[in-house]
Amino acid sequence: MADTVSFLVDPLPVDASPEFLEASFREIEPGSGALAVNDLAPHRGDGIFETLAVIDGHVQEVGPHLARLANSARLTELPEPNPEQWRLVIRRAAERVPAEGEFALKIALSRGVDPGTTPTGWVHVTPGADFAAARERGIRVVSLDRGVARGAGERAPWLLLGAKTLSYAANMAAIREAKRRGADDALFVSSDGFVLEGPTSSLIARLGDEFVTTPPAAGILHGTTQRSIFAHLEAQGRAVGYRDLTLDELRRADAAWLVSSVRMAAPIAELDGAPLPVDADETAALNAYLLSPRD
Amino acid sequence: MADTVSFLVDPLPVDASPEFLEASFREIEPGSGALAVNDLAPHRGDGIFETLAVIDGHVQEVGPHLARLANSARLTELPEPNPEQWRLVIRRAAERVPAEGEFALKIALSRGVDPGTTPTGWVHVTPGADFAAARERGIRVVSLDRGVARGAGERAPWLLLGAKTLSYAANMAAIREAKRRGADDALFVSSDGFVLEGPTSSLIARLGDEFVTTPPAAGILHGTTQRSIFAHLEAQGRAVGYRDLTLDELRRADAAWLVSSVRMAAPIAELDGAPLPVDADETAALNAYLLSPRD
Repeated sequence: MADTVSFLVDPLPVDASPEFLEASFREIEPGSGALAVNDLAPHRGDGIFETLAVIDGHVQEVGPHLARLANSARLTELPEPNPEQWRLVIRRAAERVPAEGEFALKIALSRGVDPGTTPTGWVHVTPGADFAAARERGIRVVSLDRGVARGAGERAPWLLLGAKTLSYAANMAAIREAKRRGADDALFVSSDGFVLEGPTSSLIARLGDEFVTTPPAAGILHGTTQRSIFAHLEAQGRAVGYRDLTLDELRRADAAWLVSSVRMAAPIAELDGAPLPVDADETAALNAYLLSPRD
Repeated sequence: MADTVSFLVDPLPVDASPEFLEASFREIEPGSGALAVNDLAPHRGDGIFETLAVIDGHVQEVGPHLARLANSARLTELPEPNPEQWRLVIRRAAERVPAEGEFALKIALSRGVDPGTTPTGWVHVTPGADFAAARERGIRVVSLDRGVARGAGERAPWLLLGAKTLSYAANMAAIREAKRRGADDALFVSSDGFVLEGPTSSLIARLGDEFVTTPPAAGILHGTTQRSIFAHLEAQGRAVGYRDLTLDELRRADAAWLVSSVRMAAPIAELDGAPLPVDADETAALNAYLLSPRD
């Protein structure tokens, strides 16, 4: 058992024979030198990733995360990931951490060493931070201009707005800016005034009885946690919908959350310094669902 | 002597004693495992870089590149790079490759292993590609929407548009899109129709007797090669200026180039399928200057 675990992966083609799976990855010492400096991940941020939650030994939503990894690969023209290989590596990595508690399991696929003919892959598992306060009392959020107009991703697919790439420098800068302003997280807004997503999360707002989130066509990453929550709410007969919301509409919402795989549902308690209602019961129900075993 | 050389660097603070410089870096086997998978460069594209040309043993424009690296560090809130350390590593790396021919020397500074308390650095030198055709006959360029309006970088500094970060996935996707369209390179255009820069180059256009380039405030990286060319042209009494140009104005230019540290001045022979005049004499003069030793 270890709290932090790393694996290096030689990504296999989708049609690889199953006999090659076990020998296609190996555990490495966390923090040890593993990637070449001219690998296109450190060189160019040129790769894709997913972060999965491991809750008491269960890896959440492996299928949806691998489906999105495959979509990111398609958008960035990387070879299609072999789902059986990644399922196996994910299982092996999750088995190496304690069977109790929360962990964040990141899988990544890079274009490989320059010029990028052979992809590189890795898995890195770390203990989850303590998100109790964020999940209960909520978070303070500031809205930040994302610079792009709603729908830019469809007009300009090379911007990769719908792919989960390793190029997150601006997302990290947005979180630093939010902290500088005394907040916990950021919410990106399109240059034409529509709310988009957080730097590492999706937005869900409740307006009356309806749960609303940003349409992926607006130019965002389609959230696996948001999809999981919407499927859960729909199964309960609740109303859910994809709709563009302005920042003013969000300010009048009855409740709102930034949702993500590891922090789960964090209610927005404050938006740009003004309080937003926190629905404690709804939030607790959402996080109870998100923390339950999901596939 | 080797054609490809890598160094790992422990970035020193600016006030480090000179006695620590020599022991602060070491040569490593190119392509060997060097960076941890949870270093924030591969993890998040969270770092900065510069690419310098080495021409017949002379490293071009070390000072301007280190000045821009320091500016990128400021914009991304990385520790200020120690210029003496980087000068020494650059010199040592350049001494390891043959004293004849062209090489590309990349220096990079990452936020370090997650959570990023201690930066990581590296240098990687590779032989320059053969750019003779691009420098003489020119390149075919397609214009691609950059998604952001002119000036977005000043309104939203967290977009890091003026920093040379390791998050280049979209830049690489734009070059792939250009190649898919049968071109050699891309030219980003703002969502409001102004020409910006190439994914890895700056634009210079000649309109009549004046050389014009995009103002950095438009939301671009200020090019070291563009600045070097402008200083050279000004010293010759030529007219140079920073001015916003629309794509239509560029189409009517008397000549235009994409300029960068390693490919140097590549005349745009074709823009979106329509020919653009190539000024062979001016281009040859520019490249002769760029290939001469510059500090």
